[in-house]
Formats: sequence, C-alpha cells, structure tokens
Amino acid sequence: MRGAPRRSRDREEGGELLYGINPLREVLRSRRRRLLELLVAEGRGRGRGFEELLRAAGAQGVPVRRVARSELGRLSGTREHQGVAGRVTAPGFAPLGELIDAALGEEEPLILVLDGVQDPRNMGALLRSAAALGAAGAVFPRDRAAPLSPAAVKASAGASEHLPLARVVNVVRALELLKERGFWCLGIELGEYPPLWELSPQGPTALVVGSEGKGMRPLVRRSCDALATIPLVRGRVDSLNVAVAGALALYEVVRRRALKGKNWG
Amino acid sequence: MRGAPRRSRDREEGGELLYGINPLREVLRSRRRRLLELLVAEGRGRGRGFEELLRAAGAQGVPVRRVARSELGRLSGTREHQGVAGRVTAPGFAPLGELIDAALGEEEPLILVLDGVQDPRNMGALLRSAAALGAAGAVFPRDRAAPLSPAAVKASAGASEHLPLARVVNVVRALELLKERGFWCLGIELGEYPPLWELSPQGPTALVVGSEGKGMRPLVRRSCDALATIPLVRGRVDSLNVAVAGALALYEVVRRRALKGKNWG
Repeated sequence: MRGAPRRSRDREEGGELLYGINPLREVLRSRRRRLLELLVAEGRGRGRGFEELLRAAGAQGVPVRRVARSELGRLSGTREHQGVAGRVTAPGFAPLGELIDAALGEEEPLILVLDGVQDPRNMGALLRSAAALGAAGAVFPRDRAAPLSPAAVKASAGASEHLPLARVVNVVRALELLKERGFWCLGIELGEYPPLWELSPQGPTALVVGSEGKGMRPLVRRSCDALATIPLVRGRVDSLNVAVAGALALYEVVRRRALKGKNWG
Repeated sequence: MRGAPRRSRDREEGGELLYGINPLREVLRSRRRRLLELLVAEGRGRGRGFEELLRAAGAQGVPVRRVARSELGRLSGTREHQGVAGRVTAPGFAPLGELIDAALGEEEPLILVLDGVQDPRNMGALLRSAAALGAAGAVFPRDRAAPLSPAAVKASAGASEHLPLARVVNVVRALELLKERGFWCLGIELGEYPPLWELSPQGPTALVVGSEGKGMRPLVRRSCDALATIPLVRGRVDSLNVAVAGALALYEVVRRRALKGKNWG
C-alpha cells in the first residue's frame, strides 16, 4: 500500500521525464536529483554535446535505452527533445534552516522567496537571475509553485539543478523564520508603495515576489518588513513580468552593495 | 507576378495565424495589423472574454468561421488556442525617423534597440518591459529578429501590438541615425565593462542589447557610445537572460531619472 502513493507523489513532485541535452547534463552534474535511465532516439544526427552526455551517463552507470524517435516525442510530449530524454528522481530540496545557515555564511546574505510563481519558465528565469546575481538560494511553497519541469530547467540555464532551494509548506512561517534569523524581508508588489530604489536593504535580505497576475497572498504581503514597487508608465502595459520584477529587485540589492563597498573602501 | 512574392513575404513577416483570446483582442485594439478572419472552434466552453472578442470582431466587420476544434489545433499548431484563432495581416512598423521624432517629443526620450533577439518569448518580454518602463519604442533588424508570433504577443502582454516599433535593415546605420539625432547609445554586454550603475544616461538614450548567447554583433557593439555590464557572481550561472538584461538597463534609466527629478525638484 505504501509504494503506490509514493510513486504517485514522486511524479507530482517532478519525478518526470526531462529532455534535451543541456538539462540532462545539468542533472548529471548536480545532486538535486538522480538520472535513472536515459532514453535515446534511434537514428543519426548527433553532435558533440550528445556524445558527451552519453559518456557522462555511462560513467555514472546510468542505463541507456534506444527508442524510436516518434516514441521519444510521445513520451516527452515535445519535438524539442534533441534525441534524448531521461527519467529522473523527484528533485531534492534543502530544509529552510539549512538554506538560511548557508546564506548567513556568505558575506552578503540574500535569499529570494517566490510566493506561488506558476509558469515554469518564470520559475526557471527567477532561479537563473538569483544564481547570477548572487542569491544564496530560493524558497517556494510546496503547493503553489511551478514544478522544476523541462521548461523550468531550460529557462534556468542550469540554476534549477544547482541553486540551493527550500520548498516549504507555509510561506508566512518561512518569512517568520527568516526574520527571526535576522533577515529583512522586502516584498515587491504593484501598487502605491515606495519605489524600489528608495529602500535600502541592509544586512541579510529576503526578497519576496508573488504569483503572475495576483502577486503575493495578503498574509504573505503583511508578513514582509517593507513593500516596494517598480513605478510603471501609466496607460501602457499595466504590470511587469514576475521574472523581470524579481530580477530588478535582485539587481537593486547588488547595486547598493557594490556602491556601499565603494564608499567604504 | 507581383502578387505571389508579396503574399509569401507577408507570411514571412508574421502574416500568420495568431491564437488565444488576449492576443486577438490586442490585435483588434491596435493599428499594427488587421484581423482578416476569426476561426472559432465548434462546441462549448466559452467565457466572457471569448464572447467579448466575438462582439468586438463583429463590430469591426471581421468574418467569423466555425471550424472543428481538432482543425483549430492543427492550424494553430498548439492546444493552447482557447477555442479561437485569427488570420492577421503582417504587422506594420514605423519608419525609424518617425519613431525617433515621437521619442524626441517625450520628456525623457528612451528607445530600446534589439540586435538579433531570437526567442519570441524574449522578444515579447522585452517589448513588455520597454512599454512598462517608459521607452518610446523599440528597434530591431529585419532579418535577425524573432517574429511577432503568438508566443511573442502573449509574452508582451499586448505591448507587441501597441508599442511603436521600427524594423530596420541595418542596426549599425540605425545607431548612426540615433546618434545624429542626439541619442546616447549604451550597449549592455557581458564582459569587462563598467557596471551599469556607474554610467549616467543623460538626455535622449538608446539602450542596445544583443542576441541570446552571442550578444551584439561586433560592428553594432563598436557603434555604441559606451558599453556597460551587469556584474555576475562568478562560478554560478554565466549569463543573464537577455530579457532580464534589457529590463535592468531600462530600470536603471528610470531610476536615475526619478532621482534626478528629485534632486532638481
């Protein structure tokens, strides 16, 4: 009785078929999940990246199965599989406490909190920006977040498999823990809030963004220490993409810290 | 003899089938292209947005044709058509000179130049950010740019149909014209350049970003008045998404202008 629900949960939690050369290479390089089996399309048309992936999988003892190209398309649900797909375990996540400890070990502790980002590409793009701009990790809710699907892995340029991630049951409680541990929680939201550039993140900072369309849930918004907005030109487009809003907030922290270093240097 | 090549060019230039309720609504609201025919899936499952679209199309005299749902899927090449697709004319663009005139009529002339963005979603996201953050328009090359495809229209949240756009044969010549007309051309690039926040755009500004992966072409890079970079944390992800890089540059201009207003106010 226990086996079946667990398998089903694995599937829900991302234990799916990833495809494409780069995403599968990142899985092999990371410890977020294991590659259980590689499915390779019969036929020709392979490049160096493909052969390197096969070698790397072989070196880790991953079984390789040849399937018809049409079967690979059917299994992966896309034509963009580049001739290869892989069965992977559900991704592993860090407990929030560990992620906080690791962040506090860095010179400029910075964590990104995603309250319900739904689009896997936005999820991936946010993780990519978080990694590129120096966040120690990202936090997202178990039940209201895009899975680390092939689209998310691709959009993240590898960050989905490498950036420390904590998946939490309750984002409000996560913010409370972050605040207890000395993080200043800054929420980014549309509305009549001070512009992002007027707020000065000092010390450990958690940046919070909400879901596409709806933003943060009210309780999450109220749990932030401060709220800031990115002023938009009225009468044109009425919101920014959430991945852009998150990147702007990360950039603002990086910019301020660089300038601070300069003033103090 | 003249009809056939023109039709074929129309198709190349985006005279395709757009799908989805919001993109088609934006087409009806804009003057970038005309909706020639609406294709509606037979059957139920329609909401208010769908009925409003049908009414708006009717008011503009657009013919409506009922097709089987499977046929709509085949024609649009997606399952995400929301029961509706539309044949549209190729998008119309403004001459660069007109776009520059319009920009110079604004208080803070700002133009975004895209040198070869390939992914329609990145294209759409950049146009959305440009509109939201107050650019007067965007410039991109005729031959090396993502088309305004359904994915681009969707990612742009309407900006692809409304933001003034100039499509040019030669980006280098476009930058020369922008400079002649008093624009300061700032290129955003990976590499050993000063951080974005150290450069102070004064007066009319053109921001230039390159393609995914390769950045600007060398001649375009050399045509910029200055180059800036967004410093990344080493050893993690080695680049930012181009739509994020473009948005950061737009944000930086908005931020500086807001602060300047405050100091001078």
